[in-house]
Amino acid sequence: MPGKLILVRHGQSTWNVENLFTGWTDVDLSALGREEAARAGRELLAEKLSVDIAFTSVLKRAIRTLWIMLDGMDRMWLPVERSWRLNERHYGALQGLDKAQTTALHGEAQVKIWRRSYDIPPPPLAADDERHPRFDVRYAGLNPADLPATESLKDTLARVLPCWDARIAPELRSGRNVLVVAHGNSLRAMVRMLDNVSEAEITELNIPTGVPLLYELDASLKPTGSRYLGDPAAIAAAAEAVRRQSEKKS
Amino acid sequence: MPGKLILVRHGQSTWNVENLFTGWTDVDLSALGREEAARAGRELLAEKLSVDIAFTSVLKRAIRTLWIMLDGMDRMWLPVERSWRLNERHYGALQGLDKAQTTALHGEAQVKIWRRSYDIPPPPLAADDERHPRFDVRYAGLNPADLPATESLKDTLARVLPCWDARIAPELRSGRNVLVVAHGNSLRAMVRMLDNVSEAEITELNIPTGVPLLYELDASLKPTGSRYLGDPAAIAAAAEAVRRQSEKKS
Repeated sequence: MPGKLILVRHGQSTWNVENLFTGWTDVDLSALGREEAARAGRELLAEKLSVDIAFTSVLKRAIRTLWIMLDGMDRMWLPVERSWRLNERHYGALQGLDKAQTTALHGEAQVKIWRRSYDIPPPPLAADDERHPRFDVRYAGLNPADLPATESLKDTLARVLPCWDARIAPELRSGRNVLVVAHGNSLRAMVRMLDNVSEAEITELNIPTGVPLLYELDASLKPTGSRYLGDPAAIAAAAEAVRRQSEKKS
Repeated sequence: MPGKLILVRHGQSTWNVENLFTGWTDVDLSALGREEAARAGRELLAEKLSVDIAFTSVLKRAIRTLWIMLDGMDRMWLPVERSWRLNERHYGALQGLDKAQTTALHGEAQVKIWRRSYDIPPPPLAADDERHPRFDVRYAGLNPADLPATESLKDTLARVLPCWDARIAPELRSGRNVLVVAHGNSLRAMVRMLDNVSEAEITELNIPTGVPLLYELDASLKPTGSRYLGDPAAIAAAAEAVRRQSEKKS
C-alpha cells in the first residue's frame, strides 16, 4: 500500500505582509507565518499521522515552516530533502514590486493577465540582473539552462513534475508517508496532476497557508480521498485570507 | 582538490546542565547551548568558508545546533543528511543517572573505568527497557543487530566509520566543503582516524562545544593542517569548561 501525502503551504512571509511579488526572493516568515507553521504541526500531531520523509524548497519561508513543524512534532530527526524544483513560481522582473508599482509600469490589464493566465510569464529578469538565479550560490550546481528568469504557471508546473516523478512518487510507492512543505504555485502542480484540474481552474485554485492537505492514494498514486486537517472554521478563514490577498494584488 | 572538513560539537544540553549521562537520550540544547551554536555559525561566517553540505546525527541537540548555525549563516537551503551513526556514544543503563547515583550503584572505581577506558562498555539497557533504541521509531528502518544497548568508545568509533567512508569522504573527495555537527564521541572517531590518535590518547581528547574545528586535507584525505576557528581565549575557555564537566562526572 502506498504512503499518504501531506501538502503544506508555507505560512505568511514578510513580503506577503507588504503585498510585494516574492517569487524566488528569499524572504522569511512573519510572526503570523511562524504561528501558522506551529498550528500545521499541531494538526498533524492531532491526526496521529506518522511522517517518514519531508520535502521542501530551497527558500527559507518553506524551510522554516518545515522546521517549526518538525520541532513541534518532535520529529527533527526525519530525513529532509530540499529541491529548487519545489520553489515558488519565479515572478521575473515583477519580484520586489507591489501592485501600485506594477500597475504604473505595465497597466492594470497586463498585470491581470500575468497573474491569472496559465502560460503567459511576466517580463524576465535581465541576464545581468544581480537577482538572476545564476548569481545565487544555491543554484550553482544546476544546469544554467534550467534556471528561470521568469515563469508562467505552466513553466512552474513543468519544472516541479520531475521532482515528483524522481523523488516523491517513489517514496510514496514504497509505503512512506511524505510531507511536502512548499509554495502556492509548486503545490498547484501536484494538485493539478493528482486531481486532474483543468488549466483554467488551476489558476483560480488557492491553497490556504499552514493547513495540511492530506491525500490518500491508491497503488497507481491516484487519490482515493483528500481533505484539509484541522478546524473547518479556521480552514475557511485561511482560504478567505488567501483569496483576499490574491484580490488585493489583482 | 578535496573539500575542507569542519567538525562542530553541539552546544550545551539541558542534561549537561544537570550533569546526567545523556548518550542517546534526546534532550534539547540549553539557552547557553543555543548561544554556542550561534557563535559557531558566526565563526564560520567570519572565516568566509562556504559550506556545501552538512551532516548531523538524529539527536535534536546536534540538529538544533546545525539549524541555528545554518540560520545565522543564511544557508538554510544547504543539503543536510542525518545519520544515527553520528549519534553520541550509547551510555547503556547509565543514561539518565548522575554521578552520585552511578557511584552508589556501581562504585567509584568501576564508574571511572567505564568513563575512561577505550573498550569497556557500561551495563546495557535491558532488551525490554522502554528506552532501548528498538522501541524508538527513528531507528525502525535499521537492522536490529546494529542498534546498541550500550557502547564502549571503541564500539562508537566502529559504527561512525561506515558513515565517514560511505557518505562523508566521497563528498570531500568530490571537492565539497563538509560540515559535521555531532557529539563528543562521534567526533572523536573522526579525529582519531584523521590525526592517528592512539587508543589511550583518544579517551582523554576533549573537543570543546560550539567551536568549529577546521581540517584541510590532501588528495588521500590526510590532514595538511587543522585549527579551531575563533578567538583563542574563548576556545581555551570552552576547552576548560569541557574538561571540568568531564572531571565532575569522573
